[in-house]
Amino acid sequence: MAEFSFIEELRARLTASSALTIPPGDDAAELRVSGDRVLFAADMLMDGVHFELARIPPELAGRKALAVNLSDVAAMAGTPTACVVSLALPRDGGLALARGVSAGIEALAREWDVDVAGGDTNSWQGPLVINVAILGAPHARGSVRRSGAKAGDLIYVTGRLGGSIHGRHLTFTPRIDAARALHTRFGLHAMIDLSDGLAGDLRHILAESGVGAVLDRDALPVHDDTRKTASGAPGWQHALGDGEDFELCFTLPPAAAAAMERAWPAADSAAFPRLTRIGEITAKAAHPLTFRDGSVVPAAGYAHAFR
Amino acid sequence: MAEFSFIEELRARLTASSALTIPPGDDAAELRVSGDRVLFAADMLMDGVHFELARIPPELAGRKALAVNLSDVAAMAGTPTACVVSLALPRDGGLALARGVSAGIEALAREWDVDVAGGDTNSWQGPLVINVAILGAPHARGSVRRSGAKAGDLIYVTGRLGGSIHGRHLTFTPRIDAARALHTRFGLHAMIDLSDGLAGDLRHILAESGVGAVLDRDALPVHDDTRKTASGAPGWQHALGDGEDFELCFTLPPAAAAAMERAWPAADSAAFPRLTRIGEITAKAAHPLTFRDGSVVPAAGYAHAFR
Repeated sequence: MAEFSFIEELRARLTASSALTIPPGDDAAELRVSGDRVLFAADMLMDGVHFELARIPPELAGRKALAVNLSDVAAMAGTPTACVVSLALPRDGGLALARGVSAGIEALAREWDVDVAGGDTNSWQGPLVINVAILGAPHARGSVRRSGAKAGDLIYVTGRLGGSIHGRHLTFTPRIDAARALHTRFGLHAMIDLSDGLAGDLRHILAESGVGAVLDRDALPVHDDTRKTASGAPGWQHALGDGEDFELCFTLPPAAAAAMERAWPAADSAAFPRLTRIGEITAKAAHPLTFRDGSVVPAAGYAHAFR
Repeated sequence: MAEFSFIEELRARLTASSALTIPPGDDAAELRVSGDRVLFAADMLMDGVHFELARIPPELAGRKALAVNLSDVAAMAGTPTACVVSLALPRDGGLALARGVSAGIEALAREWDVDVAGGDTNSWQGPLVINVAILGAPHARGSVRRSGAKAGDLIYVTGRLGGSIHGRHLTFTPRIDAARALHTRFGLHAMIDLSDGLAGDLRHILAESGVGAVLDRDALPVHDDTRKTASGAPGWQHALGDGEDFELCFTLPPAAAAAMERAWPAADSAAFPRLTRIGEITAKAAHPLTFRDGSVVPAAGYAHAFR
């Protein structure tokens, strides 16, 4: 694998950017940041775990590697700025793979106005590993953390949940626009992106905020894709446990929620995804997460085959 | 591998930091940055390529993963601020490995006042993969790039070169202090850190700057460790080609170089490593990199066994 020629290719494709003051190709990139704080996160994806190159083109693997990072920034209500990409490439076919992965990353980066600020390529005998680290600008109202939920808040999710393994885990729209608009207009208390499944991820909000929650099982927005999994389990179990939905789960006070329900467009779209009220935050209880009938929400449903 | 318990452990160990406004454990960390620009880079290290867990404790693998990133920031004359760590852990023994790698990263991070701002842990059937992404603050005089070398500049390296495979590639001191001090006091024109070997890395400066260089072969500071490699090759070949020295190579005008030689401490130390003048920058030539006698410097010497 000719590392340098690949980086040269990458640089040749990059257009001048307003944020990058030193472009890829030096020991580090330098970029302008807005304000004096930045968001900083990273995710690593491995072939056979988060995607299967035997079944999908490398472009989709690259797309997912950036998209899951965009989803992390969205979950803070932030705006992604720049990313750096590291690759471990199998020795056989590594250059073609690097090109495919990069094309997938760059296409999504352009869509969200994110700079690909550099990276590191390596080859080895192992499978493809992609790491993307991301920088973002925090929301002017402050970042939305997992720890801000209050008793009485209502709980919402974007989109529909479950069955993402049938394709959406590779093609989902990161909820950047929706998160930013929601926090700007309605002041969110707490938010998380749904990577491990609602039942698990909502528990992070509850633990960090020191609260409990009651869920309306029948309100859970179950995705039609769950029918493609011949598990025999009801749709709500898939919605709670399948994972990799990369939708957002957030809480806000009832008055703000009422304003949001009045103002939010009824038609489902990429920028304004459907919102579903799925329950409410309560005081901390013996079982922090129950259904309305008092039964405990199972800790996990069906594990995602690619985790 | 219990991802969450490991992250909990990590959080419990972290002390409150002045830079981190949102600590690890949320979807992204948030941190203060000085000024309005940041340096941003990443490096991925794989077991069997950049280190061998069969021979070394995981603490040293973690240390190296952060150290190579610190070296990238040093090569810009910047100050490292925060890092995020991603791990792909073998299923067997992954938790112990994660603890060892993190301990190595955290110890070096404390030494350089760098925040470990978060990360991502995964398990799989493959070998250990560590990715560290780093943020840094640029030097107040501006970052030192590869592209700033001018004909007439003198070329220096820190430390001694070659034979790092016998241990120094795991234990080297990133030249952060030296780089900052040199740029503050003497105004460097161009700089790179020596990861692939002087012959290759200096060529990046020449290519980016559109210049040539003449090297004094007998001036090359050959490390004693090169004697441990029974190659039969002369020391200077190891100094040029072994790689993973993680020393700095930089250029500056003769007057600044003279001031530097007068002022720089004679005693070799971690903060003030020995400096060696190894040649000078020339106008662009047919062969960009030659020795004084006109012979072309070989493109690479002995490849590092761990690359």
